[in-house]
Amino acid sequence: MEKWLKSLKTKTPQEGFELAITLSQQGIKYTQPSEAIRKKLRPKYAKDPDSLIAASHVIAVNYQTVAAANNYWRENLSYSLK
Amino acid sequence: MEKWLKSLKTKTPQEGFELAITLSQQGIKYTQPSEAIRKKLRPKYAKDPDSLIAASHVIAVNYQTVAAANNYWRENLSYSLK
Amino acid sequence: MEKWLKSLKTKTPQEGFELAITLSQQGIKYTQPSEAIRKKLRPKYAKDPDSLIAASHVIAVNYQTVAAANNYWRENLSYSLK
Amino acid sequence: MEKWLKSLKTKTPQEGFELAITLSQQGIKYTQPSEAIRKKLRPKYAKDPDSLIAASHVIAVNYQTVAAANNYWRENLSYSLK
Amino acid sequence: MEKWLKSLKTKTPQEGFELAITLSQQGIKYTQPSEAIRKKLRPKYAKDPDSLIAASHVIAVNYQTVAAANNYWRENLSYSLK
Amino acid sequence: MEKWLKSLKTKTPQEGFELAITLSQQGIKYTQPSEAIRKKLRPKYAKDPDSLIAASHVIAVNYQTVAAANNYWRENLSYSLK
Repeated sequence: MEKWLKSLKTKTPQEGFELAITLSQQGIKYTQPSEAIRKKLRPKYAKDPDSLIAASHVIAVNYQTVAAANNYWRENLSYSLK
Repeated sequence: MEKWLKSLKTKTPQEGFELAITLSQQGIKYTQPSEAIRKKLRPKYAKDPDSLIAASHVIAVNYQTVAAANNYWRENLSYSLK
Repeated sequence: MEKWLKSLKTKTPQEGFELAITLSQQGIKYTQPSEAIRKKLRPKYAKDPDSLIAASHVIAVNYQTVAAANNYWRENLSYSLK
Repeated sequence: MEKWLKSLKTKTPQEGFELAITLSQQGIKYTQPSEAIRKKLRPKYAKDPDSLIAASHVIAVNYQTVAAANNYWRENLSYSLK
Repeated sequence: MEKWLKSLKTKTPQEGFELAITLSQQGIKYTQPSEAIRKKLRPKYAKDPDSLIAASHVIAVNYQTVAAANNYWRENLSYSLK
Repeated sequence: MEKWLKSLKTKTPQEGFELAITLSQQGIKYTQPSEAIRKKLRPKYAKDPDSLIAASHVIAVNYQTVAAANNYWRENLSYSLK
């Protein structure tokens, strides 16, 4: 497998959200490695509201992980305790 | 991608809930970027109780993240330890 | 938007559960703001066991948030450390 | 509403699991308060494997809350720090 | 109810996973206590990929609980701080 | 049962993700032990977008566990406190 994930650390909450999207897509890629098949499926689920809500759900779960890994992008603790 | 998320910090629990809604919508926008298509889908899922429950579920997951990021809007820890 | 959520703090675990229900309902209200439509949908999902289980699932997720916010209604930490 | 939940505290992990079941049932009761209707629905979902898996899922989510509230029934912290 | 759960503590991460499976099965048993009916349902869901994914999902949620209870089978903290 | 899981510890976040996939697959294997049947089901769910999203969801839940177990692959705490 190629290297696609170096760290869960991101600079901003939005970049973290985009990393959560990458994680969600990778969960699909590992299960269906063929890009050709994935592309063929796309028009279907991208127009099905329940599929879109389900996709957003997976992103939300992965975002919990990324946000926790970044300590919710809070200011550095040692600094805030000064 | 435009900048749509600066911080997970909100002033109140209700603003946090509204941010959780934004996160849930963004999860859908990244998957289906066309506003025209999303608008067309809306009448369908907004009248389907299972879609509405599923949407509320995604919001609940994102609210967990936002609430944790805000330390559940508890009073400041350094203050409460005095 | 009207103000409907002041705090995640509740006096008892049961009030916390009822707040989790409110959060779950609000997730639906923000997605379908029309009370008339929501009322029309109610007879359908309230008699569908899978919808009821799904609704209970959303409440459970929101209850995790409310319970954590209230530190699970444990006795005050500073007291228990005495 | 009658009082049905006094505390998330339980003596054993199994009692905690049974409390998680109660929480899951209450999530359904608040959504469908009629006992007559709930009884009528029971034969359907109790023979549908997907409904049973979904019910077990809700119990699992509530068990996370109950288990955290009981600090996973670990030995008392103040004792283990001696 | 018979006693089926003494502790969330397990010796290894794999035993913890197997306990998570037990918890998931118990969630089903409490909802459908008849072993005869559960056995009849088994051939159906065990050949339905979506049921299998849903079952794996419940196990994953219960595994979060068991893993947290065992502090993820990390070495003992007091030892690692020496 | 053969031994398939020694530790939740992984060297990198990507290896952790791959362990989350293993956990998700094991959740299915324990429920449907026959490899012949699992292989027969594969073509179906691997071409169904909703099954793929559901599979990615399970991986996301297991990844939360693995990531927490690895303290999100943050630098060692005792080091960062120096």
